[in-house]
Amino acid sequence: MNEVKVAILGASGYTGAELVRLLARHSGFRIQAMTGDRKAGQPMASVFPHLAGLELPDLVAIGDVDFGAVDAVFCCLPHGTTQEVIAGLPPHVRTVDLSADFRLTSLDSYATWYGHPHKAPELQTEAVYGLTELKRAAIKGARLVANPGCYPTSVQLPLVPLIKAGLIETADIVIDAKSGTSGAGRSAKEANLYCEVTEGIHAYGVASHRHAPEIEQELAEAAGHPVLVSFTPHLMPMSRGMLATINVRLAKGAKAADLRAEWTKVYGAEFFVRVMGEGGVPQTRHVRGSNFCVMGVFDDRLPGRAIVLSVIDNLVKGASGQALQNMNLMFGLPETQGLDQQPLFP
Amino acid sequence: MNEVKVAILGASGYTGAELVRLLARHSGFRIQAMTGDRKAGQPMASVFPHLAGLELPDLVAIGDVDFGAVDAVFCCLPHGTTQEVIAGLPPHVRTVDLSADFRLTSLDSYATWYGHPHKAPELQTEAVYGLTELKRAAIKGARLVANPGCYPTSVQLPLVPLIKAGLIETADIVIDAKSGTSGAGRSAKEANLYCEVTEGIHAYGVASHRHAPEIEQELAEAAGHPVLVSFTPHLMPMSRGMLATINVRLAKGAKAADLRAEWTKVYGAEFFVRVMGEGGVPQTRHVRGSNFCVMGVFDDRLPGRAIVLSVIDNLVKGASGQALQNMNLMFGLPETQGLDQQPLFP
Amino acid sequence: MNEVKVAILGASGYTGAELVRLLARHSGFRIQAMTGDRKAGQPMASVFPHLAGLELPDLVAIGDVDFGAVDAVFCCLPHGTTQEVIAGLPPHVRTVDLSADFRLTSLDSYATWYGHPHKAPELQTEAVYGLTELKRAAIKGARLVANPGCYPTSVQLPLVPLIKAGLIETADIVIDAKSGTSGAGRSAKEANLYCEVTEGIHAYGVASHRHAPEIEQELAEAAGHPVLVSFTPHLMPMSRGMLATINVRLAKGAKAADLRAEWTKVYGAEFFVRVMGEGGVPQTRHVRGSNFCVMGVFDDRLPGRAIVLSVIDNLVKGASGQALQNMNLMFGLPETQGLDQQPLFP
Amino acid sequence: MNEVKVAILGASGYTGAELVRLLARHSGFRIQAMTGDRKAGQPMASVFPHLAGLELPDLVAIGDVDFGAVDAVFCCLPHGTTQEVIAGLPPHVRTVDLSADFRLTSLDSYATWYGHPHKAPELQTEAVYGLTELKRAAIKGARLVANPGCYPTSVQLPLVPLIKAGLIETADIVIDAKSGTSGAGRSAKEANLYCEVTEGIHAYGVASHRHAPEIEQELAEAAGHPVLVSFTPHLMPMSRGMLATINVRLAKGAKAADLRAEWTKVYGAEFFVRVMGEGGVPQTRHVRGSNFCVMGVFDDRLPGRAIVLSVIDNLVKGASGQALQNMNLMFGLPETQGLDQQPLFP
Repeated sequence: MNEVKVAILGASGYTGAELVRLLARHSGFRIQAMTGDRKAGQPMASVFPHLAGLELPDLVAIGDVDFGAVDAVFCCLPHGTTQEVIAGLPPHVRTVDLSADFRLTSLDSYATWYGHPHKAPELQTEAVYGLTELKRAAIKGARLVANPGCYPTSVQLPLVPLIKAGLIETADIVIDAKSGTSGAGRSAKEANLYCEVTEGIHAYGVASHRHAPEIEQELAEAAGHPVLVSFTPHLMPMSRGMLATINVRLAKGAKAADLRAEWTKVYGAEFFVRVMGEGGVPQTRHVRGSNFCVMGVFDDRLPGRAIVLSVIDNLVKGASGQALQNMNLMFGLPETQGLDQQPLFP
Repeated sequence: MNEVKVAILGASGYTGAELVRLLARHSGFRIQAMTGDRKAGQPMASVFPHLAGLELPDLVAIGDVDFGAVDAVFCCLPHGTTQEVIAGLPPHVRTVDLSADFRLTSLDSYATWYGHPHKAPELQTEAVYGLTELKRAAIKGARLVANPGCYPTSVQLPLVPLIKAGLIETADIVIDAKSGTSGAGRSAKEANLYCEVTEGIHAYGVASHRHAPEIEQELAEAAGHPVLVSFTPHLMPMSRGMLATINVRLAKGAKAADLRAEWTKVYGAEFFVRVMGEGGVPQTRHVRGSNFCVMGVFDDRLPGRAIVLSVIDNLVKGASGQALQNMNLMFGLPETQGLDQQPLFP
Repeated sequence: MNEVKVAILGASGYTGAELVRLLARHSGFRIQAMTGDRKAGQPMASVFPHLAGLELPDLVAIGDVDFGAVDAVFCCLPHGTTQEVIAGLPPHVRTVDLSADFRLTSLDSYATWYGHPHKAPELQTEAVYGLTELKRAAIKGARLVANPGCYPTSVQLPLVPLIKAGLIETADIVIDAKSGTSGAGRSAKEANLYCEVTEGIHAYGVASHRHAPEIEQELAEAAGHPVLVSFTPHLMPMSRGMLATINVRLAKGAKAADLRAEWTKVYGAEFFVRVMGEGGVPQTRHVRGSNFCVMGVFDDRLPGRAIVLSVIDNLVKGASGQALQNMNLMFGLPETQGLDQQPLFP
Repeated sequence: MNEVKVAILGASGYTGAELVRLLARHSGFRIQAMTGDRKAGQPMASVFPHLAGLELPDLVAIGDVDFGAVDAVFCCLPHGTTQEVIAGLPPHVRTVDLSADFRLTSLDSYATWYGHPHKAPELQTEAVYGLTELKRAAIKGARLVANPGCYPTSVQLPLVPLIKAGLIETADIVIDAKSGTSGAGRSAKEANLYCEVTEGIHAYGVASHRHAPEIEQELAEAAGHPVLVSFTPHLMPMSRGMLATINVRLAKGAKAADLRAEWTKVYGAEFFVRVMGEGGVPQTRHVRGSNFCVMGVFDDRLPGRAIVLSVIDNLVKGASGQALQNMNLMFGLPETQGLDQQPLFP
């Protein structure tokens, strides 16, 4: 098969660089163009020295990309500009968008959470939500995939099958999530300086984080009725990794073992999802650098409740890895291609 | 006033060393003896080089301490041996015990959680639970104070006043706690190696941690009826610090602002407790090295629930600092003496 | 005695905050004003939450400080603006300047390394170089003290006495230095983001760092002739701390033990300098948060050479602590006042 | 081609796990057996959860390996036991030994540095020193390869070609090296606990580290005469990575640019060695998880000297990666097979 020619828009950030790392070992795609407005004109190896030695085009401005010569786009641009750029792509281009711009299917919800009307409403309707394991069929035929957020990925993978199976109730879902700092991106902000992040932890976006409506949208779809969740994200001193600790109310009579059995049924054949046995505790460091999601579950001390634990690498399964997984699907390639490496530990 | 002569039992661990650090600047106490069985005979400065330059006795075995010459004991021994050692102290000695041995008032509960009957049951009954701000009167006259665990301190300080005031319900309290690694002590274990801890996070003791019954005991006392809690502790890459993220069900009509107001009323005059204003998010790094507890609260996205955040330094307010605060009280010294330094940031 | 009224210029950076932390426990000085141009109008506790609870004036712009009501100034402003601000202070004000502006006594050297002529040349001549242990007499009477750089402090404390005593040669001094990231300040730069600093190390300013001429100036003064040094600083993942590993050529017949003996002679009565015995290896974490410098020395495997090791906390002895030590001296206060706390470990 | 059947002896340590990670993607080798004496009987996934999902044999005791069914051995055993185990292997087995047991070619030197006579002297003579880029021809035909130490690899790669070309002198080579903590292995030692390593740095093995004679042996071979080096290793808070900062005396008239040119000549065709251009500073984090070595060089401020910088991942090019590179060579496979992934950053 011929190589698919891809452009990476916004390649000067962490998710862009991670795509390059993954695509570097992928024989099905060829990086045709990479953009980075402030770094246009620079070779990638000077922006990201760990990517030296690869044959890569230099960074250019978006306006300088010949999209006619491109089959597919990974869009790693910031929220807001994304929708206008994607709306301007020629129709033959298939896109996986890593921003939040096309994740919310409700135009009202978008306007509420982002403070302005959507600028490409017809695309928003067309876009397919790209949580691969749960939306595989729709993704295959999609022209535009909205790649899920990192937190939503870590939460939906364990919860959606449990809701669908009626094993947990949708009231009182309490999500306590911990993220690595790469999720905050590479832009220079005081709050993300080494001295401000190392050796400590704090919550942020408490009860107001934009990933909450995204989580709720997908859990609602699984439940068939609206769902609200408690969602408290935390920033902590790790570059990569994400842990969701989720306290859920069990359906009457259900036990942690039933949840585990359901996961095994649903995910038993999935390469990237691992279900730990009884007593197993997922650790973020054991999925570092990989596209895996590992989950475990415990009966809670509170009767009728359970504690669900789920880990991913926020830059891989939570961003660039899942984006590649989706693009593989869209172009008929093996879903795991370019994504089969083991985690890096220690 | 004459200096109170103290012995520190188990001074070769982190809590022992922290006591020495704090007492080094305290004019009311004099360190008369320090024990460390495996390191007996060594100067403290070779066990903890950061304590060089102080005039300190060398470490000795417990059997070599002349307790007749000692007024007070800080006991930092491991669980189990503690109760026998304290039972053997002469009656004039006043003790603050940093282990878990005397925290549970129910002998049955102790036997259940620790797997054997208590070996000093009459002392267990006598011991006063030493959460200073909440038990001040009893501590003053106590001969034996059971210093609270780090997790219980971080949870009880925010929750007990709210329960007493009837502002939160006691059902469905979901505690997600994150601890620095010093809480695991200085003994050499694979799980606590740098490479196993850095750049990652994981839960441990899920639904089975021994601090759960301690938390429940004190919340029950505040409520006047039994209380169960969901408690999930996590180990993360910071030496010092502890964050409790607590999701609570509000009493009918109560709001986060009411909880904040109650804290302000109860803790307004407390030196070591700080209540953040609306939108304030406590960070562990902002209490590092200090005896402060900082708390904040948010209305949750789930109607009728709130998110309580509380931070301490697990080695100070969660252990040695509170122990000194209690000992100050027991000997009629100003409660803040030796504990008034600012946190160390960055 | 009356409190000395001080202003801290540039209090919104790490060295400014560290001064506030130290002064908070100091009864001889009162913080009269603090400036932070971009944060003017804000309370210090919102800029640095770890400093909440102190009675502090809000941050103001420099132009709003009434220097007539101020006895002393700690100047933590960036290079360049510093010299103009200090030149404009009323003559009764005594100043410790933490910038590099007044450290180089040669106007030519200043112009070479900083790319422009000095704007306050007469002050540059007047300024006293403030390495306390080595310049105590001059500091006492100074109106303007140029507080040494962190690297120069870590290098000069061990080397100056050895050069003066003729125990080491001044040719081929090879300094390999490792700094905590707080030395880079709190301004938001990509290179200092958590993800760019954690879990790695790299050299910077190789053979071109501005602390090289400062080191050489003082070593030359000790030697009585010009000195050049090899100086390679490294940035590493620690907030605080600095280690200088220095390879020196011994004077004929000298051994590491002779160097150690000389240090003991020179520094034996110094509170803040500790000399480790044979085989002792200084660790940065054992001086964290303190004003101590710990040094050790080993005979090298290369005949006639030795390896000198020296650690400080770059924000304390390398900046704000030494500044306070100097100010204590200038106002006749005990040199250790406000600086006698033990290091914070772990 | 048929798969080569390999056994990994000592697979329960970090280097063993790293070999498994690399071999998991390698089609030329099949892991036939893995040993871990204390963990015999356990599946690898319970010892190293990041290796779950691979088809691997359980860990066994060495005595239970059928070496008749094995073509090749990676030996990751500790020093001392290694030589006896390897001496007992059947003659058809080809071995890469990651311990220090067969690196020193002089039996006297071995006895001096390790405190006892070598137990397999004839094998020590036979063993080929496996710095791949410098010993390729000998490695291809070797039955026993002594895989170089991490420090020696980081030092020899840059220095050996410069010595051979006569561009640097061999007197006064001053090596300041910084290592990640995984180099200390996975055994539980107080000194390697998270709290003892994070946020600090210290030297160890000053002027007495066993890698010094290994470095000297190979530099001497390049020089044609004995060489002594100053070697000061440091332990720092990173799991993986190694930086050698080396101060060298240039041959008369040589400049940094000449050294760079020589490297380019020697290593221009090497996949795993990268030479940075003028002003380029290698960072350990930019080779993390990869088999690359990146080097750079600067003219020193001291006339006639230069500063050489070299980085590797201590577990990959410094251990398991180079071991696999050597084994590829020994079995006629492409040298980069299984080793072509990009570094993981951030």
